[in-house]
Amino acid sequence: MALLVQKFGGTSVGSVERIEAVADRIVASQARGDSIVVVLSAMSGETNRLIGLAEQIQAHPTPRELDVLVSTGEQVTIALLAMALHKRGCEARSFTGSQVRILTDSVHTKARIREIDSQRIHDELDQGRVVVVAGFQGVDEHGNITTLGRGGSDTSAVALAAALKADECQIYTDVKGVYTTDPRVVDDARLLRTITFEEMLELASLGAKVLQIRSVEFAGKYKVPLRVLSSFEDDPGTLITLEDDKEMEAPIISGIAFTRDEAKVTVSGVPDVPGVAYKVLGPVSDAGIEVDVIVQNVSADGTTDITFTVKRQDSQKTRDIVTRIADSVGARQVSVDDRIAKVSLVGVGMKSHAGIASQMFRTLVDESINIQIITTSEIKISVVIEEKYLELAVRSLHAAFGLEG
Amino acid sequence: MALLVQKFGGTSVGSVERIEAVADRIVASQARGDSIVVVLSAMSGETNRLIGLAEQIQAHPTPRELDVLVSTGEQVTIALLAMALHKRGCEARSFTGSQVRILTDSVHTKARIREIDSQRIHDELDQGRVVVVAGFQGVDEHGNITTLGRGGSDTSAVALAAALKADECQIYTDVKGVYTTDPRVVDDARLLRTITFEEMLELASLGAKVLQIRSVEFAGKYKVPLRVLSSFEDDPGTLITLEDDKEMEAPIISGIAFTRDEAKVTVSGVPDVPGVAYKVLGPVSDAGIEVDVIVQNVSADGTTDITFTVKRQDSQKTRDIVTRIADSVGARQVSVDDRIAKVSLVGVGMKSHAGIASQMFRTLVDESINIQIITTSEIKISVVIEEKYLELAVRSLHAAFGLEG
Repeated sequence: MALLVQKFGGTSVGSVERIEAVADRIVASQARGDSIVVVLSAMSGETNRLIGLAEQIQAHPTPRELDVLVSTGEQVTIALLAMALHKRGCEARSFTGSQVRILTDSVHTKARIREIDSQRIHDELDQGRVVVVAGFQGVDEHGNITTLGRGGSDTSAVALAAALKADECQIYTDVKGVYTTDPRVVDDARLLRTITFEEMLELASLGAKVLQIRSVEFAGKYKVPLRVLSSFEDDPGTLITLEDDKEMEAPIISGIAFTRDEAKVTVSGVPDVPGVAYKVLGPVSDAGIEVDVIVQNVSADGTTDITFTVKRQDSQKTRDIVTRIADSVGARQVSVDDRIAKVSLVGVGMKSHAGIASQMFRTLVDESINIQIITTSEIKISVVIEEKYLELAVRSLHAAFGLEG
Repeated sequence: MALLVQKFGGTSVGSVERIEAVADRIVASQARGDSIVVVLSAMSGETNRLIGLAEQIQAHPTPRELDVLVSTGEQVTIALLAMALHKRGCEARSFTGSQVRILTDSVHTKARIREIDSQRIHDELDQGRVVVVAGFQGVDEHGNITTLGRGGSDTSAVALAAALKADECQIYTDVKGVYTTDPRVVDDARLLRTITFEEMLELASLGAKVLQIRSVEFAGKYKVPLRVLSSFEDDPGTLITLEDDKEMEAPIISGIAFTRDEAKVTVSGVPDVPGVAYKVLGPVSDAGIEVDVIVQNVSADGTTDITFTVKRQDSQKTRDIVTRIADSVGARQVSVDDRIAKVSLVGVGMKSHAGIASQMFRTLVDESINIQIITTSEIKISVVIEEKYLELAVRSLHAAFGLEG
């Protein structure tokens, strides 16, 4: 008999019919003899509806009150699911984040979990009940309602699984699991049966938006076995494991991530003196703009070029800021390119395998795709290319590294 | 500087615009130097929407989970109002029933308040904050969310006023206050400036649905001065007082209540033996049917007629039950009349004034209105008449007792 934490997202509980379907799935799990803790998101669209109401009143709603408001979304779904379970003769009880005592810090709208009272949940499970917990929310030490920020229900599920020492944390979603790359771009993208936490982190942050990145970090830290699977199909999905569990013969590359929502900013001919990167990037980050890739190369004449990428929606604002400071840092030119895409190979096998980068570059050259930027990490190589080549690049790399199903 | 509890109902907070208007009103109260505790209902329609969702899943939703569900309605309005107050530079904090610790028993969907932690609220008030509390809800000793039943926000407000020893509990609604009778029936119905708790109880239970009856009982018991006033107009409304506060020259009759949603059931020719009323009415009340007026008269031949009224929607069900038991109690006949109305005169002055009843009956006779049933209490005389005479009866009584403005 296993203890499972099952998390269902907003799409999976988006209507009364879908909530009934989730109830069927839970009853089936329980019939297999497992103890079940369920974590739910709000019905899809509900959180945005509530934020919309708040923004009609305040452009920037008071964070404490915003948490009181949006936390009602999950409170609705847990009550409805508990009813649907009762209808099926299944004993169940709903709990808000405050009731189960998911204790967080007091940083409203993006609180971090400190502690969970697992005893209360174990008591309920011992009585044969399914425990239905509101995701995304908690309570601070003063009794104020807090929320964990967007996508925080995944984090709630992993934190509960860690606190309860659950056998598995199952994240039900609207895709079957994690693929070698986006199946909409590459027809024969393969569903991965396992992937390591590290790989998943790189894939998630690079745009394979199956799981919220914080929840993956959390699961890795507390060694919670995490499974991504479909709430609409019967398929075991993808298990995210510790590296140790990986087979010796595991493929070198697990997947290919990509993003096309970035813009590239280049500040050229900057004198190559200490602190210049900070002078360029400090004001950008002070303006709340997220910077992704940063590369800097020394050139022969004592000047250097600094290139970085930002979200495409921030490109105009970034250009304004950088243009304003260009003179003071002695830059020759500022240029912004919106028509770029980033493609990344991810795989733990890469660590011990030097040939990956050259094979990647050769594959792109063979397709006459010019590489504008290269960055690498332990388990990832990313290149920035012209956007129009994105699909071609992903497909040829997918084939070159033998990722197809 | 007074401490005021101000309660706003669902219509008063039915949209973002109305919530903003409520915020303006509260800011104005605070500017006059008063300390304010606000109690809110859910936006009008929201509670029904939530119950509708629940009933799509269960015909009779699990009470504990129904409370988790519907309590979100007030949680939304308190957060939005707190935001609207912040926008006006007014320090405010929202609290759910659980946070403020409105401790109730565990009878879900109709819980009763046991205790309120007034210290927490006083602490907030001492810091100059407006305290915004979710009405209608509480928490039991095990931390389960409870609700007080329909209209329970009035009760929340009165209970808070009692616990805080507030100077006044103000119930803002969509009418200006309590009238001598329904202004839709009698054009010159007069707004009462004061009314006693006892009179208000009789008027409320007789269909003058301005205040929830439980809240009036509660206010009377704890001697909380209660005021009914409009959230849309500037008018002091009606103050509900202890009898002692009434002027010596107060009018004998305060108001005329009426209802047309009842049906009359008569069981005739029943042997007049002990226990027969119980045999007739026991099965009716066991079926969950509410009985209002009950009259029984001995007739000459050793048999009696029992007449009682029920809600009109229950008349068919009541007829079935009574017909089934008619034989066993030896009744001659069962008859049901849906076309009746009840008219009641209410007033504390009546206690010491014997002539009221005869003046009432004479007024009705003058209009050729036949009286079917008469019942009386200390401060009320009710008659059942044919429904088509209702407006005529109310208007002529209103004039006969000099209630016009």
